[in-house]
Amino acid sequence: MIKLANSLVKMSKQLKVTVIGSGNWGTAAAKIVSQNVKVKTMFDPTVKMYVLEELINGQKLTEIINTKHENVKYLPGITLPSNLIAIPDLKEAITDSDLLIFVLPHQFIKSVVSNVKATNAVKSGAIAISLIKGIDIKGHVPTLNTAIITEELNIDCSILSGANVAMNVAKEEFCEATIGFNVKENAKVWQQLFDTSYFKIRCVNDVAGVEICGAIKNVIAVAAGFCDGLELGSNTKAAIMRMGFLEMKKFTLQFFPKALDETFFESAGIADLITTCFGGRNVKCAAEFAKHGGNKPWNQIESELLNGQKLQGVSSAEQLYDIILKHNIQDEYPIFSTTYLISFGKMKPKDFIPKLSTDTLIDF
Amino acid sequence: MIKLANSLVKMSKQLKVTVIGSGNWGTAAAKIVSQNVKVKTMFDPTVKMYVLEELINGQKLTEIINTKHENVKYLPGITLPSNLIAIPDLKEAITDSDLLIFVLPHQFIKSVVSNVKATNAVKSGAIAISLIKGIDIKGHVPTLNTAIITEELNIDCSILSGANVAMNVAKEEFCEATIGFNVKENAKVWQQLFDTSYFKIRCVNDVAGVEICGAIKNVIAVAAGFCDGLELGSNTKAAIMRMGFLEMKKFTLQFFPKALDETFFESAGIADLITTCFGGRNVKCAAEFAKHGGNKPWNQIESELLNGQKLQGVSSAEQLYDIILKHNIQDEYPIFSTTYLISFGKMKPKDFIPKLSTDTLIDF
Repeated sequence: MIKLANSLVKMSKQLKVTVIGSGNWGTAAAKIVSQNVKVKTMFDPTVKMYVLEELINGQKLTEIINTKHENVKYLPGITLPSNLIAIPDLKEAITDSDLLIFVLPHQFIKSVVSNVKATNAVKSGAIAISLIKGIDIKGHVPTLNTAIITEELNIDCSILSGANVAMNVAKEEFCEATIGFNVKENAKVWQQLFDTSYFKIRCVNDVAGVEICGAIKNVIAVAAGFCDGLELGSNTKAAIMRMGFLEMKKFTLQFFPKALDETFFESAGIADLITTCFGGRNVKCAAEFAKHGGNKPWNQIESELLNGQKLQGVSSAEQLYDIILKHNIQDEYPIFSTTYLISFGKMKPKDFIPKLSTDTLIDF
Repeated sequence: MIKLANSLVKMSKQLKVTVIGSGNWGTAAAKIVSQNVKVKTMFDPTVKMYVLEELINGQKLTEIINTKHENVKYLPGITLPSNLIAIPDLKEAITDSDLLIFVLPHQFIKSVVSNVKATNAVKSGAIAISLIKGIDIKGHVPTLNTAIITEELNIDCSILSGANVAMNVAKEEFCEATIGFNVKENAKVWQQLFDTSYFKIRCVNDVAGVEICGAIKNVIAVAAGFCDGLELGSNTKAAIMRMGFLEMKKFTLQFFPKALDETFFESAGIADLITTCFGGRNVKCAAEFAKHGGNKPWNQIESELLNGQKLQGVSSAEQLYDIILKHNIQDEYPIFSTTYLISFGKMKPKDFIPKLSTDTLIDF
């Protein structure tokens, strides 16, 4: 049974917060919530952040964060609030916490959730939120990270996603984010925890819609990158983005029929798509790929352009295509399908547009 | 009474086409339709283009177009089909034509339509389409160019709009466009006339929605330009574009309640907005304006950056604000209102974001 956070609020207990993850986005998010808990009395004024320990010039990262108040490895140059405490032990980090924030690379979600479960330290009545982007495939249908968290830990899990570049958020530049929720009372707590004047939160009763948009937008960014690499004009790129946006909407509704139309108008929908298609690693690497006629391997491009970071759009395109193929719906998703085919050498980048253009009139 | 083009088609008469206007977009559009009439037997194989005569190095522009097949002044470097005939006399250009394409700067629409009417040469049963972007204000409500054409000439008028940069279209780079129609049979004729494999036409039964988007997107581009000039990050710009997009939708539905939701997903909606906010004159000039703290006059910016072309977004912002103010709905349109206030010196560009940010939680 999933308990609601508001029952905790009603007990006039201060809610304790733990951030699980300490990469650039995790640290930026931790900064926001640490600012908020200092001024909102419904929260305990200390935030714990679980940090996978590592040595930086011989010193432990947790020690650096707790003394220098800066995550020198993943968010250098940003001063963190002193009420944010880095903790290298997972069990210690989550013990007694009411609010668990999962923010880590998508590929680690299963092992981390499994480790969290193994601690036996998740408090009864705790709730979770995922800030993770990316989806998995199980039985040729997309599975949600929020569902993995809920199933493994038996706690309600919301999602937060939006047009949010970690460093810009850390610098407190104005942006928006979307919380997708199952339980309204819980969303109200998360909104209190995350909303600031420079980080505006809007909430929708649609976990799946918010989460799927966050993963699929990377595939459309790969398509947009092909446009850039082929030196096509801005109207071609806008056409690709528009068609990709409609495919994203259609795909989400096909596999999660309860997803809401309004989600696509939120920051997690159209705004994140726009940001991602005009900047970021997927579009940059895809442009490089197309520029070299599809003959330069992705891992070479990654190592040349991403400085150790990984591409998500290409593997997401493969996952989507696996689903699309199994359901035999390639024709309904020309952008997704073509992006996969080009990315995996089954089509040349220069054949991207010819694949989309047709002399057939569109019926109406 | 407005006759339908399909009655003409049924008479197995070939439909004659006239393009009224010969700027860069007019000439690019004329190129497309001239290609199509050569291969589609429902059309007369000659297209007439009305050209306001001018001398280029002592030679008449119409003569140059008709002999060199290039509009050296407005679309240099693009070879035009030889079945496109430039005509300097308006009456001669429209006489006998079934299909009238209006494509000229918005500020000339009233005088040109009035001149067309004065010729007494508009054929009974002719229909029109407008490729004009921009709106007018009459009695504090927006008035449509299509409505002006219909009222003055008593003919049905559709609209074509989309993410279309004239030169890119002329180079046959892939893009999309939207036709908004009142009469489906007429839209089918226009689709046949404009659709090519590189210029894909989709049709919606919504003239007002398509036309209003084409005008309002320039105001949002001014807001996006302020972001650029203030050197804000891509997530801030995406937030501004998203909020502007929702205001565009709301405004359109407020004044034209029959506008369709789907229009905003068409090329004339979201795709044109994206293109316009990442390139083009409005965003460029607004960035320059913000960079100089709002202290550099618009006409100076125009003359420095636009080489004689005129800004549309700033005057459109003024028109919108006139309507908004009269209806006392400023609070419902923060992006439109703030863009006007900054553009006309009533607020500083640096106060753009503080005006939008708030500590108030958004209700849901």
